[in-house]
Amino acid sequence: MPPIITAFEQSPDRGQGLARDMRVRWALEEVGQPYEVRLVSFRAMKEPAHLALHPFGQIPTYEEGDLALFETGAIAFHIAERHAGLLPEDANARAHAVMWMFASVNTVEPPILELANAKLLEGDKPWSMERLPLVEERVRTRLKQFSAHLGNADWLDGAFSAGDLMMVSVLLRLKSSGMLDEYPNLSAYVARGEARPAYRRAFADQLAVFTGKRPGREEGDA
Amino acid sequence: MPPIITAFEQSPDRGQGLARDMRVRWALEEVGQPYEVRLVSFRAMKEPAHLALHPFGQIPTYEEGDLALFETGAIAFHIAERHAGLLPEDANARAHAVMWMFASVNTVEPPILELANAKLLEGDKPWSMERLPLVEERVRTRLKQFSAHLGNADWLDGAFSAGDLMMVSVLLRLKSSGMLDEYPNLSAYVARGEARPAYRRAFADQLAVFTGKRPGREEGDA
Repeated sequence: MPPIITAFEQSPDRGQGLARDMRVRWALEEVGQPYEVRLVSFRAMKEPAHLALHPFGQIPTYEEGDLALFETGAIAFHIAERHAGLLPEDANARAHAVMWMFASVNTVEPPILELANAKLLEGDKPWSMERLPLVEERVRTRLKQFSAHLGNADWLDGAFSAGDLMMVSVLLRLKSSGMLDEYPNLSAYVARGEARPAYRRAFADQLAVFTGKRPGREEGDA
Repeated sequence: MPPIITAFEQSPDRGQGLARDMRVRWALEEVGQPYEVRLVSFRAMKEPAHLALHPFGQIPTYEEGDLALFETGAIAFHIAERHAGLLPEDANARAHAVMWMFASVNTVEPPILELANAKLLEGDKPWSMERLPLVEERVRTRLKQFSAHLGNADWLDGAFSAGDLMMVSVLLRLKSSGMLDEYPNLSAYVARGEARPAYRRAFADQLAVFTGKRPGREEGDA
């Protein structure tokens, strides 16, 4: 039985890759693990059956036999631990990859979430225009630090890892803001992630949910 | 050689346990691992020597032989992987503990960080009074969901784990707001964490940096 993940029945971004199931789809594609998708509505996400899987009423979830998980970092780590391709074998390099997974969601993503909230939840408030530059500066602080650290490297620690997968996924949320373009090495880093065949397959599959067009690689299916 | 962690030379909270080195001190105490502390000034945190350890210029860091880590979730996981006491042995239970580590920093902490920013960085802005209740509601959404999930359980998944350590640490940031008191099972959960001997030793040690009083358990030392 392949693992089953959940994704939005109606995605806020209409399949542009920002829903968090992308992170799990991408991880599964990187390791070549087939999976099934169960779509859930916004209403069903707040009902007991889904809350039993995900106490915070979100997607994605991950079910595999008698294991049920939520939280993209934890699901990506679970996949990376059980399949080759996303975590280095050397113990120190592996600890570094885990470090970058946590850094992506706990140091880089929070100001990006705050910026998203400022736009989506407070865009109509009287303070919105004056406040937005403050929030953007908090994002820039992190981007500047991360840009300085990454330098000209292709990936964070040699080969692509689950740390890169999570960091690229988090930075992708900034794409429409244009802020990534202020840091050419970061926009190139994100573009390298998007160019990976596994990312492209995952993207096509999640987009197909909304366009109704099945991605090319499945054209021969029944 | 015991591992070396970094902590604030001058803590913004004067040793009330909110600086993030507490999470690492607590994890090390839970597993009975001695450690050393190197204090860093705010200025030194932004200088090249520290940025080489922590690209985002924060504390804590963790150095052990040729391994250097930052990010509390990753350091706690590293400690938990190498010593008994913070991760269950059963594979599924272990994946759950990791899930809660990520959930604490990526789902519960972001609105708490946003609330802290609203108070610390925007408390003097004209919109502060009107905006604060909106931000508090985002925190309450998470607290309500987590309270419903935790119910009457002592810990998240049976025995205390690194998931509880991280979740209690994140919730502790709300203590002064009084918001935890709205959810009696959550304030009891946090109090159970604070009552653990390992927490108390870690708290006393980080407080001693600022009071100059060495904690009781070291009174016999040279």
